[in-house]
Amino acid sequence: MGRPPLDGIVVLDLTQIFNGPYATFMMAAAGAEVIKIEPPGGEHLRNRTVNPASRLPYAMLNSGKKSLRLDLKQPAGREVLLRLVERADVLIENFAAGVMDRLGLGREVLLARNPALVYASSTGYGSDGPYRDYPAMDVTVQAMAGFIDSTGFPDGPPVKAGPAACDFLSGVHLYGAVVTALLSRERSGQAHAVEVTMLEAAYFALSSGLGMVQANGPRAVGRTGNSHGALIVCPYNVYPTRDGYLSICVNHDEHWRSLMAAIDRPELGTDPRYATNAKRVANMAEVDALLADWTRTRGRDEVFDALVSRKIPCAPVRRMDEVLTDPHLHQRGSLREIQHPEYGRLTVAASPLRFDGQASLPERASVPLGTDGRELLRERLGLDEAALDALERDQVI
Amino acid sequence: MGRPPLDGIVVLDLTQIFNGPYATFMMAAAGAEVIKIEPPGGEHLRNRTVNPASRLPYAMLNSGKKSLRLDLKQPAGREVLLRLVERADVLIENFAAGVMDRLGLGREVLLARNPALVYASSTGYGSDGPYRDYPAMDVTVQAMAGFIDSTGFPDGPPVKAGPAACDFLSGVHLYGAVVTALLSRERSGQAHAVEVTMLEAAYFALSSGLGMVQANGPRAVGRTGNSHGALIVCPYNVYPTRDGYLSICVNHDEHWRSLMAAIDRPELGTDPRYATNAKRVANMAEVDALLADWTRTRGRDEVFDALVSRKIPCAPVRRMDEVLTDPHLHQRGSLREIQHPEYGRLTVAASPLRFDGQASLPERASVPLGTDGRELLRERLGLDEAALDALERDQVI
Repeated sequence: MGRPPLDGIVVLDLTQIFNGPYATFMMAAAGAEVIKIEPPGGEHLRNRTVNPASRLPYAMLNSGKKSLRLDLKQPAGREVLLRLVERADVLIENFAAGVMDRLGLGREVLLARNPALVYASSTGYGSDGPYRDYPAMDVTVQAMAGFIDSTGFPDGPPVKAGPAACDFLSGVHLYGAVVTALLSRERSGQAHAVEVTMLEAAYFALSSGLGMVQANGPRAVGRTGNSHGALIVCPYNVYPTRDGYLSICVNHDEHWRSLMAAIDRPELGTDPRYATNAKRVANMAEVDALLADWTRTRGRDEVFDALVSRKIPCAPVRRMDEVLTDPHLHQRGSLREIQHPEYGRLTVAASPLRFDGQASLPERASVPLGTDGRELLRERLGLDEAALDALERDQVI
Repeated sequence: MGRPPLDGIVVLDLTQIFNGPYATFMMAAAGAEVIKIEPPGGEHLRNRTVNPASRLPYAMLNSGKKSLRLDLKQPAGREVLLRLVERADVLIENFAAGVMDRLGLGREVLLARNPALVYASSTGYGSDGPYRDYPAMDVTVQAMAGFIDSTGFPDGPPVKAGPAACDFLSGVHLYGAVVTALLSRERSGQAHAVEVTMLEAAYFALSSGLGMVQANGPRAVGRTGNSHGALIVCPYNVYPTRDGYLSICVNHDEHWRSLMAAIDRPELGTDPRYATNAKRVANMAEVDALLADWTRTRGRDEVFDALVSRKIPCAPVRRMDEVLTDPHLHQRGSLREIQHPEYGRLTVAASPLRFDGQASLPERASVPLGTDGRELLRERLGLDEAALDALERDQVI
């Protein structure tokens, strides 16, 4: 492949934790020059101290980026940023709403320096509206968006989704918004400010349930455990095996017949009680019980192999260590073990965006805070050694 | 705002259910001309019959698109597609791996007609690698990706995330990949084929847990219920109230002091057992119990108002009907009630990608299958009425 797709695009990255850094990680992986700008103490993710292992996501999400330490609370720090803005394509941040304005770095100030800048922000709830100032973290947005209420068993309490679904949904939407604005600028000359909120980015993922509630009222669906959210497909559940769990999801009647053949009950494949999805849904408890009776006495991977070889949609419920060592992901170049200079042996992942079949994993691992500061300011802004020393002495960089 | 960002981009959309249609919904909302091409019977989501309400997501995800019915299993249908390809910017599909090749519509065939075409595909596991032919649905990918194993309570079975997180994560990555390829084509003249897999698109959302497992081994984290996935923040939980649940997530010690003031226990704000996050994590059960004792006797919204007014990160665990009628989302133009010609009164949502502050909700509601077929083929391909009649008679369109 020729030039990477975002080659030559310069991104000033003020983001932190998961949401924004995921967006800029994908930009770096697609070839953009991402300059990550962190406050003097480094962003939150570098500074998790309760369990040092909880800092590893910093390395996973920040490879391929340059690092500049910059104190935006000092006038000299803001001026450095504004001079970088003059030479940048994108500035991206996921501070709480209003923070950039309070720093004196609101959109108008930035655009005055560079009218062609794409200004991108992500917040929990947006830059206007009644919830603007509500604090937002992945779990609180999961609560607001209906993720928590819809997760768990019918007879149990609600439970959050294990993955940080709202952070990452928001981050990838932010990526999409920025690239769209760059495309629009390229085609029409016009730069857009783009905004993504965590709540709006989460909304569509509950389409199934939201449809049911609209048609049939607030109590149309409750928590359905591992069954389909709208209880319209059967079998659709997570079944116990001797050594773990297995998910099975059968929408088509021919898969049902294959499944019954696989468990040595071919007669049930055409039994009128179960022959169509509608019938199976009506007899869901029976269907689930007969499958569980069969899976319970077998090994998880043995069951998976038996069913998947018949093209029956199913999957093992894998632990995270299995995901990390997944031979498929390693073979496709999606995962790679590296020796990280700060964090040691580490598995890093490529961007999920694959161009011409190639996995895009930045060559350069994440770097210590401020690694590229002097060089960047020397090259971009023409600062001399004395000026750089002064900025360091004043703890601006 | 001037032209919408994707104005003039023509997308041939062969996608179905959630993943691909979400990507093309966002393209339509950003101004692209999206021509949705469905098989003679319509895509799966139109045809859910067990509960008719489960078809509503079709309308939510397909507004702003034109509809063409086209039988790609007939040579005349394939030729219509190829002639449309000559005039399109993007062709996007989320069939199982290999389906387009089997239809005789593989990438090379399409590029031979239009070398500038961006070819975009999304599958469960990719066009190569050992899992290429595993069937994939949202729930089976949730199983493979570690979402299910990491969701639920420590003493209970694993449970899937309520939202279709893997479908929608994949869909928005696909959007980002397509727009990146369009930008690259605009800048360099080179068209890319882009691919997104559901498994790879899900990977990063478990960064927190994957970091812990890498550092501390397979059993480093189990299911943590509503607590932080890496158990490094406290309080971080979902607490019962008199009439529902509330999520609280406090990372900063000043929020802890505010929280203790809010529950009339200001002395605990500086109590050495709880004064720092590390101390609170060490005494997590006590902290959770003292908060639950307070929340349990109060109303959910009363607790939320009391805490959020002190800027303590928290949120009500909302039901889906509350999300649908959310005053904030309606005020921001993210949600709108429409009278849908096929489905009746319906709340539709704007794209989460907001350009220059504006919500982008296509004006045109989703349309019945084939609505735009004749007009499209007349205008694009110059077919006359006799030719169109013949295609209809042969059930090609």
